Amino acid sequence: MADEVILMSYWPSMFGMRTVIALEEKGVKYEYREEEDVINNKSPLLLKMNPIHKKILVLIHNGKPVSESIIQIQYIDEVWSDKNPFLPTDPYQRSQALFWADFIEKKLFLCGRNTWATKGEELEAAKKELIEILKTLQSELGDKLYFGGDTFGFVDIVLIGFYSWFPAYQKFGNFSIETECSKRMTWGKRCMQRDSVAKVLPDSEKVFGYVLQLKKVYGIE
Amino acid sequence: MADEVILMSYWPSMFGMRTVIALEEKGVKYEYREEEDVINNKSPLLLKMNPIHKKILVLIHNGKPVSESIIQIQYIDEVWSDKNPFLPTDPYQRSQALFWADFIEKKLFLCGRNTWATKGEELEAAKKELIEILKTLQSELGDKLYFGGDTFGFVDIVLIGFYSWFPAYQKFGNFSIETECSKRMTWGKRCMQRDSVAKVLPDSEKVFGYVLQLKKVYGIE
Repeated sequence: MADEVILMSYWPSMFGMRTVIALEEKGVKYEYREEEDVINNKSPLLLKMNPIHKKILVLIHNGKPVSESIIQIQYIDEVWSDKNPFLPTDPYQRSQALFWADFIEKKLFLCGRNTWATKGEELEAAKKELIEILKTLQSELGDKLYFGGDTFGFVDIVLIGFYSWFPAYQKFGNFSIETECSKRMTWGKRCMQRDSVAKVLPDSEKVFGYVLQLKKVYGIE
Repeated sequence: MADEVILMSYWPSMFGMRTVIALEEKGVKYEYREEEDVINNKSPLLLKMNPIHKKILVLIHNGKPVSESIIQIQYIDEVWSDKNPFLPTDPYQRSQALFWADFIEKKLFLCGRNTWATKGEELEAAKKELIEILKTLQSELGDKLYFGGDTFGFVDIVLIGFYSWFPAYQKFGNFSIETECSKRMTWGKRCMQRDSVAKVLPDSEKVFGYVLQLKKVYGIE
């Protein structure tokens, strides 16, 4: 029996982008289901498949749900292990990849959000912190092509979704990531040359328009 | 050459307790180093070994550091794979164990902290949420002996450190976890029968005294 794979996501989600890219990298055939209203009108399937958090994103494999993007990427890597491994096999290298994924998870989303959702001192602090985070990541990348070395892997997948949000962060925060972290941006362009990434990441203008909408919804001037 | 394993931790840390229990379960010989002052006087070794977060806890294996307790437990499970596996081998079951670990990680610490660090409406909300979290975990435990089934495993290790903090949460918050979640507490007592857990978890009275100190330091009445 062929695998039935469904992903319930929402296009602007950088977390959702990760999982779609992981599926694409493995060549898995999947059905993408866009959840139109992730706040006020959650679909019955979403509520059934993620009863604990009641939110996107959910990967459903042969009827069984897996939640949380980083866990989904690990799951996809383990189930479809014959192609493009994401995590290294060496336990120490694995722990380091998981460490950087965790670092991105804990730091980047909130800080990025604050570049368009705050102003004054809070905005300045967010911009400063965002640059620090990216410099730390740039230092970890070093002269490697990708975070894991020569091949696109786990940490790249975890981070790349944010790349489509950077222009919005910069415009609303009125600062330049490229000036401060050119190596990081070269990495992003390199990732964008991959079919899996180019196909999945939304146009930055579209993300910018979405952030404008969000600001209106939340009454942020 | 024998493995050199050092753990830098701080005794009240429920995160540190996880990693010590994991090492004990695997029968790994390790040196435990107590960081006396994790806020104002961090040791040079700590700063060297965790330059990114500059905080406990750090596991150093043959000179190489691994940070973040959940990643440490996975690392220990992979390196010392011959004894007491923590994570199941089936990818789906692994994803579910990781999901519950993530749930505990995201929810329990902050909510627990709010039972002694807040008052009024905030305290009431924290108590209500804590009971909800524990009921959700109780429902996941169901009639199983441990979260993974018949054997003490990954989710048990992630959760058990909080068990020594429950009496403090209850006393300061003036509510009863046992009344609401008796099955959960039976699980805690069952875990406490294991040498690894009994040896590592501090006495609840000691934790209570520590919280009293914290309240003084932070000026919380």
